[in-house]
Amino acid sequence: MTSPSDIEIARAAGKKPIREIGARLAIPEAALLPYGHDKAKLDRDFISGLETRPDGKLILVTAITPTPAGEGKTTTTVGLGDGLNRIGKRAAICIREASLGPCFGMKGGAAGGGYAQVVPMEDMNLHFTGDFHAITSAHNLLAAMIDNHIYWGNALEIDQRRVVWRRVMDMNDRALRDVVTSLGGVTNGFPRQTGFDITVASEVMAILCLAQDLTDLQARLGEIIVAYRRDKTPIRARDLKADGAMTALLRDAALPNLVQTLENNPAFVHGGPFANIAHGCNSVIATRTALKLADYVVTEAGFGADLGAEKFMNIKCRKAGLSPDAVVLVATVRSLKMSGGVAKADLGEENAQAVEAGLANLIRHLENLRGFGVPVVVAVNRFTGDTEAELDILTRRVTEAGAEVFLCNHWAKGSAGIEALATRVADLADSGTADFALTYPDDTALLGKIEAVAQRIYRAEGIDADDRIRAQLVEWEAAGFGHLPVCMAKTQYSFSADPTARGAPTGHRIPIREVRLSAGAGFIVAICGDIMTMPGLPRHPAAENIGLNAALEIDGLF
Amino acid sequence: MTSPSDIEIARAAGKKPIREIGARLAIPEAALLPYGHDKAKLDRDFISGLETRPDGKLILVTAITPTPAGEGKTTTTVGLGDGLNRIGKRAAICIREASLGPCFGMKGGAAGGGYAQVVPMEDMNLHFTGDFHAITSAHNLLAAMIDNHIYWGNALEIDQRRVVWRRVMDMNDRALRDVVTSLGGVTNGFPRQTGFDITVASEVMAILCLAQDLTDLQARLGEIIVAYRRDKTPIRARDLKADGAMTALLRDAALPNLVQTLENNPAFVHGGPFANIAHGCNSVIATRTALKLADYVVTEAGFGADLGAEKFMNIKCRKAGLSPDAVVLVATVRSLKMSGGVAKADLGEENAQAVEAGLANLIRHLENLRGFGVPVVVAVNRFTGDTEAELDILTRRVTEAGAEVFLCNHWAKGSAGIEALATRVADLADSGTADFALTYPDDTALLGKIEAVAQRIYRAEGIDADDRIRAQLVEWEAAGFGHLPVCMAKTQYSFSADPTARGAPTGHRIPIREVRLSAGAGFIVAICGDIMTMPGLPRHPAAENIGLNAALEIDGLF
Repeated sequence: MTSPSDIEIARAAGKKPIREIGARLAIPEAALLPYGHDKAKLDRDFISGLETRPDGKLILVTAITPTPAGEGKTTTTVGLGDGLNRIGKRAAICIREASLGPCFGMKGGAAGGGYAQVVPMEDMNLHFTGDFHAITSAHNLLAAMIDNHIYWGNALEIDQRRVVWRRVMDMNDRALRDVVTSLGGVTNGFPRQTGFDITVASEVMAILCLAQDLTDLQARLGEIIVAYRRDKTPIRARDLKADGAMTALLRDAALPNLVQTLENNPAFVHGGPFANIAHGCNSVIATRTALKLADYVVTEAGFGADLGAEKFMNIKCRKAGLSPDAVVLVATVRSLKMSGGVAKADLGEENAQAVEAGLANLIRHLENLRGFGVPVVVAVNRFTGDTEAELDILTRRVTEAGAEVFLCNHWAKGSAGIEALATRVADLADSGTADFALTYPDDTALLGKIEAVAQRIYRAEGIDADDRIRAQLVEWEAAGFGHLPVCMAKTQYSFSADPTARGAPTGHRIPIREVRLSAGAGFIVAICGDIMTMPGLPRHPAAENIGLNAALEIDGLF
Repeated sequence: MTSPSDIEIARAAGKKPIREIGARLAIPEAALLPYGHDKAKLDRDFISGLETRPDGKLILVTAITPTPAGEGKTTTTVGLGDGLNRIGKRAAICIREASLGPCFGMKGGAAGGGYAQVVPMEDMNLHFTGDFHAITSAHNLLAAMIDNHIYWGNALEIDQRRVVWRRVMDMNDRALRDVVTSLGGVTNGFPRQTGFDITVASEVMAILCLAQDLTDLQARLGEIIVAYRRDKTPIRARDLKADGAMTALLRDAALPNLVQTLENNPAFVHGGPFANIAHGCNSVIATRTALKLADYVVTEAGFGADLGAEKFMNIKCRKAGLSPDAVVLVATVRSLKMSGGVAKADLGEENAQAVEAGLANLIRHLENLRGFGVPVVVAVNRFTGDTEAELDILTRRVTEAGAEVFLCNHWAKGSAGIEALATRVADLADSGTADFALTYPDDTALLGKIEAVAQRIYRAEGIDADDRIRAQLVEWEAAGFGHLPVCMAKTQYSFSADPTARGAPTGHRIPIREVRLSAGAGFIVAICGDIMTMPGLPRHPAAENIGLNAALEIDGLF
């Protein structure tokens, strides 16, 4: 007998009406804006009314350096949320929404896996409540208004060579990465070279996820720098009067979405910025709302802890005034073997030695996380192929490193497989031992912030940045952007900028190829290597196998 | 005291919960998929269960040759629906969804006007229930799969010069009309020239609006011709295995949306294809569902009767097996004056002579509509500036032409202003006098179908089509497409192809510049003049004035 697939498990779920899920958090039915019977947004007035309530405990789930398939951060977030509910705690989870692009490419769904999933899985992997479509529209309205402004006389004197605002589409479409627009003559405008990114890479997405409320959202949208004049002075979305209409387009998208886990526990799923050129966390509005409604909120951030946790701490928590109470570091035997040098094709074979070799990666992440002043435990997301020998050495060495480790079986057993971790995490979060510390203060110079992350998190000897980049950072400081945090765009497959340097590399330097100013989101992006902001489809896209079955259910999502 | 604006009236509406609106048509609450508290989609199983019920009466609202601002077809459709309910009939309306693009450009909202509106007006003019976003995604997934197929070896041998499937965006963005994609080197594919249309121009939109159900939808999507080989044989969406994923993306979009009028009567708002290169009617699924649930269904079709009514009859009714029971021809004093030769700037001045001169236009539309074998009445959509002298001559001449004419005041008074029309239309629809006749049978040659519309509807002396076009039509007949109806893409401002030839021009010929095969939608498009499928924004786009007010309501929509 083979185990059922994620979609089979999801379809068999005993979903409850969303008003019952809301009731778990004492949300009155009138405060839920339903989208079908199993999804809802929370009403704005209800959210505003929560402000004076105390916050619950905030728990971050992050991971060691991942394999391409990921280590199950979302699965563990869902499992831990269910586990906390199982032991009688009022807990909610906060995760990101899925992008349509990868869904038709080859990545699995973004709703967890096995018996630790969020449902309705099909909706979450397709249009959900339309948030990403709203972001696409807002982004592209701004783009259209730029070219339209130039077309009608260019009163703002936009330098057409210096338009930095591209367009977006929620699709993996390599043909759109680099395009020339406005061909075809006078009535179509002035030809120029530009391109499309995938919607999750839009600064509008990052803004939506960092905004405190609609007023803050509009202010940030207005700050977006879309182009420069010949004298290099910036032109903002506000100068084009685009910020109001963009905010109108995002009015509902800014409300957090409530769904449920397979075990009928509340799950907030809202926002989904890229984890390289943006900060990779679900929305501040959702996290803060969840903290007002639940005693424990479990959330996650993109990629391994060097990227996800670092940005969660230094960007999201810093900006939103959040302070995590505990951290769970997820590892898998597979990813440890990969960190220990095993090729992807051989990950299925037992190899305790490779696990041991790979532990250097885990231990470095552990040390980094401790540097944030928050208690950390290790959770092993068990796969059916893991052997006793592999799990033994893992447990032994992590324990020797002074950390607690929990073997978790939530993928196969749901909350019953993760009770011990849940109990310990609740204790840690309640212990008050967290003494949250950022990697750098606001007033460090921008270059110093980049160096701080490179040295303390990536353990690099230093950074390589040419004069042009250094001058640019100084210029931004002079222009009043010196207080911003930095958002590092680096490969997720290594602590270094070289994706093949596994484990815990030393002696490396981080090349800063480019820096970008996201003035609306409120960070400086430092690009360390090749960062792809518009993926392509594989030779055989998953889309080829997606379709309706005889029962008109959607097959081929996974 | 000035009259309140459409948005002010809409906001002051006493909206009822959508389940109460559904109850008006005996739709059980469980059969409604809510989108917020004031919008819902109808459940698929509920719709399937209606099949054996008898149909209500179908009433088409169409118009004389319009001014650029339109003649109030939607306003009159809403008003007539409310009027029928007012006189105790169980009536519903079926209208099209609005496109985002024009909403940010300069066109007014698409939800009626004054006291004859559909609400929630803001939602209807922005994302509504996400149908258009789903169409955009399905369309662009197919586009990405074409370029991806070529990228990975082009096993189907697509001739890159003959890719006919463009991309779409729901935005007025002239810069995207004509673009070169896949620049930037090997990893981005093979550069080629292509472009974007606005979403309402997508064949996917036309397909969604003509499909009978999901099975038919997928079959039609599979038939879409996306490209040709060097030997000119066609490549279809099905050859790329895109039809299943496209159907999955459209699964919910294919369900009709239920909202309400200001008077709390049921309104189905679903689909919105272009009225030039497509057929300009709301979805067949919505119309058929409404006919099962209501005794009277009032619907409309894009532009004047030469385009909208012609396509409603010859494409939608033909394909869906529908048969209209009565037609309302909407006229305004303003449009008659324009038809009578008055310049747009002078329409505000009294000019009974121009009204009289313009009546030739109305009378020709009237004759054309009688040719469909359906009883027709004339409704005058009154404007506050209309004078007694103008209305008198209008009434007198139309009566002399043997038609009934009703002066309607629904814009200012809601259903109370349109009772007489409603009473008469109900009688006519019940009279059984309709003897529906199409303009041409299925088995007429394609060129003959184009000639039939040109001569009998446009009153042209003939058509001009060069050998290339004639050969193309014969080729399509040989390939099995000879049974398809024709979809004429002609200016809406004249019976002729010359937008400046007002009134009832004679002696003109219709130039056929290009023909296109919409194999999925199931029609041949005949392009008679310049047809814009991607609008641009005006010098001062409406978007500049759209934004949230202090109460976080959306201002600037109109």
